[in-house]
Order: sequence, then structure tokens, then C-alpha cells
Amino acid sequence: MWNPLLEFERNMAVPSPSTHRAVVEHLVRQAVYQKLGKPLPRTASAPNPLVVNVSARHCHLTQEAVEVLFGKGHQLQVHKWLYQDGQFAAKETLTLIGPRSRVISNLRILGPCRNINQVELAYTDAIALGFEIPLRASGNIKDTPGGMLMGPAGFFEMENGIIRALRHVHMHPDDVAYYGVKAGDEMKLKIGGPCAISLDKMLVRVDQSFKLEVHIDTDEGNACNLQAETPCELLK
Amino acid sequence: MWNPLLEFERNMAVPSPSTHRAVVEHLVRQAVYQKLGKPLPRTASAPNPLVVNVSARHCHLTQEAVEVLFGKGHQLQVHKWLYQDGQFAAKETLTLIGPRSRVISNLRILGPCRNINQVELAYTDAIALGFEIPLRASGNIKDTPGGMLMGPAGFFEMENGIIRALRHVHMHPDDVAYYGVKAGDEMKLKIGGPCAISLDKMLVRVDQSFKLEVHIDTDEGNACNLQAETPCELLK
Repeated sequence: MWNPLLEFERNMAVPSPSTHRAVVEHLVRQAVYQKLGKPLPRTASAPNPLVVNVSARHCHLTQEAVEVLFGKGHQLQVHKWLYQDGQFAAKETLTLIGPRSRVISNLRILGPCRNINQVELAYTDAIALGFEIPLRASGNIKDTPGGMLMGPAGFFEMENGIIRALRHVHMHPDDVAYYGVKAGDEMKLKIGGPCAISLDKMLVRVDQSFKLEVHIDTDEGNACNLQAETPCELLK
Repeated sequence: MWNPLLEFERNMAVPSPSTHRAVVEHLVRQAVYQKLGKPLPRTASAPNPLVVNVSARHCHLTQEAVEVLFGKGHQLQVHKWLYQDGQFAAKETLTLIGPRSRVISNLRILGPCRNINQVELAYTDAIALGFEIPLRASGNIKDTPGGMLMGPAGFFEMENGIIRALRHVHMHPDDVAYYGVKAGDEMKLKIGGPCAISLDKMLVRVDQSFKLEVHIDTDEGNACNLQAETPCELLK
């Protein structure tokens, strides 16, 4: 009997164990329809698979901040590569001290370094720290609260930059063309399963270097108990 | 100039400062249309206002468990009355010790006592405690994990009863008739605002004593940053 997964593995580069299930499914689906000689249904004809990932709280730092926190000349080390090319979770973590002296330890740093310092928390995290944070598109940190970061080599005071990041979808120009949207538009993500939800106001971000990927935070991911096998659909 | 709020206050019992905004708005809306001599639009013609409340993690206890934890003959004290008649947040809180010895302190007890012991957590809470909990309708605790409760007078071991409660809506028979649903059905709650979401699979629970109220947990409430003024709509 014909096994589409075996066929897929024979014909294509076998994905690594860490390949996102959505990517494997997309490729298998395309292989199956090709084998059957049938036209691709709409989902399978998308140029790229839809990957949905939950971003736990994290921060982005400038090289200057990294050196204050971890020592002169320190370079962030790669702990795990992320789905977007070149982006990684660093081995380094730090402690965030909020305005009421409560702390979040083991805050993961994402690399490579950027030209601003920004901490992205879920509202549940902010409530635990005891203060209010605004909902902002990443990078838009004017008039946002700051805080103190503590690393093994020192303290770094952020004047601003603590936000909840707007839910967003990274899209390649091919994806934008397929879905009929443009940068700055808002889309909707339907997430299935036993505690299904729909997330509106999903900000479209477009770049030639982007792979199709939705980023939601832990409040959103836990509200619907998002798992690798949970069905997701991105709608205009 | 005619002020509908003043008119409302003159003609009706003034709600207490703790009255839910949805209740006030519903009454004002009905008063306005009555004053203008116009027929009520659909929302205003609902028999009851739609109240949506976020349930933070909490537990329900038997009188036996209360006495083990707080001392022989101890009765739960009222800290705050809840929207459902007769239900209250107790002054008493306790410590929950999870299976990996991590703890949640200040876990609020809701009264009055019930005939089962049940802890309701959000998934974010369960992840912090380091274990998996199932999604269950309140009261359905067969084959769910247990844990240890610690109070000032002693420990109480729960064999089971730690769950994430299914999102649900309490409905009076009048509400069920108006929305055209029945007990056990699933409805949808649309929540607006800057991080709008829709929650599917909202379980309908019906009782003669119930006031129309949706209960969601902190993951769901924080995913959409639910505030008193956030617009909500309950749909079949």
C-alpha cells in the first residue's frame, strides 16, 4: 500500500525532528495530491505552510546593553535557532526588576542584537510584576514603561521598552499575494480544538526575508491550549 | 437637556458602585428607548444584561476539607459577594502544593461549601506549577490530577479535582429562551477592543437561580485584555 509519508521521505529532504508539524503536513499534502494527479485544494496550494508559534516573554537587546549585562565584548550565544532565518533564542537569560521591585528571572534574550532594547511580556506576566503595560507593535516603544535588567556583569536601566507585542504574522511577499493582503493590514487566526478561539487584529508584517509565521503570546496560546497538532487557519 | 443617566437614577434604584457596568448600561439603554418612545433594538430587548467576568484561579471545598485546613467547626467568611446570588469569595485563602513541590499561595476559596473539592487553574498557572491539567466542565473531576492543600490548621490531600474549567455561561431559563439555546449547547462570545478575540465552545449551563453571566479564566481574559468597558456579544 502506498504510504504518502514514506514517499515524501524518499523524494524529499527529510525534515529534522524539530521541523514544525505544519511544514511537514504541508509538504505531505502537496505530495499526496501530486501522486493522485488531482488539483491542489486551496490550503495545499498556498505557497508556504502556516506556522503558528507562541512567544514566551523575552527581550531584545542592543550590543551595548549585552556588554553592560554580560561583560565587555560579550557576544550572545545561540541556544536554539528560531523559525525565522537568522533569529535565535540565546543561551543568556537575565532578571527583569519591575517598578514595584518584583522580579521575573530567567528572561530569555533573543538574538541577534537590535538597535533598541525591548521586553515583551504577556499581560499575565505584567500583572505578576504588578504594573500596566501597553499593547504595541514591536519597535514602537515611545512613551512605554521601562525597568531594570540585571545580568551577571551588571545592571542596565531601560528608560522604556516594556510592552505587550501586538499579535502579528510574518509574511513573505508570496504569502501577501496569496492571501490578498498588504503590510499593516489586520488578519484573523482561527484556532480549533477543545477550547477553540479566533484572534482578530493580527497585524501583517512583510519582508523579503520572512517565512510565513504567526506569533502569539502565552496568554493567547494558553487561552486555546495551542499544541503542534491544533488546526489553525489564517483569514483575511 | 435630558440626561438619560440622571433620569435613570431618578426613576430606578441606584445601582451600588460595585454594580457591573453591563448591568447599568442595559438598564440605561432600556430607559433611553422607553423615553424616546422607540421600539427596543435586539440587544436592549434581551431579558437580562450580559455580564462577562474573569475567574482567577480558585478552589471549592467541602465543609470537611475546610475544617481540616482551618480548624474544627470553622465556617468560611464572606470577603466579597459574587454576581451569582449566594456565591462569595471567602476571606480564607490557602496554599496549593503541586506534584513537583512548586506552590501557588493565596489561592482564593469560593463559598459556600460544595460536596466536592475542586481547584480551577488557568493553563498558565498549571505550567508555573509544572504539570498538565485537563479541560473539564466544573464538577466532572473523575481521573483528574490531585494535589496537596495547606491551611493554617493542617494539610488536606486532594486525590483528584485539579482542572481547567471549561469556559461557560450561566443562564436563567429566560435567557435560554431569548438566545434559543439549551443546557449543554455551545455558544460563542465575541470580545472587542484592541486585541479582540472570539471564544468558541462556551458551555451553556442553565438553572432557575442563575443570572446571565459568562465565566472565562485569566488566560482568556488577558488574551483579550478584558476590561469593564470592553464590548462583548454572546452568539448562538
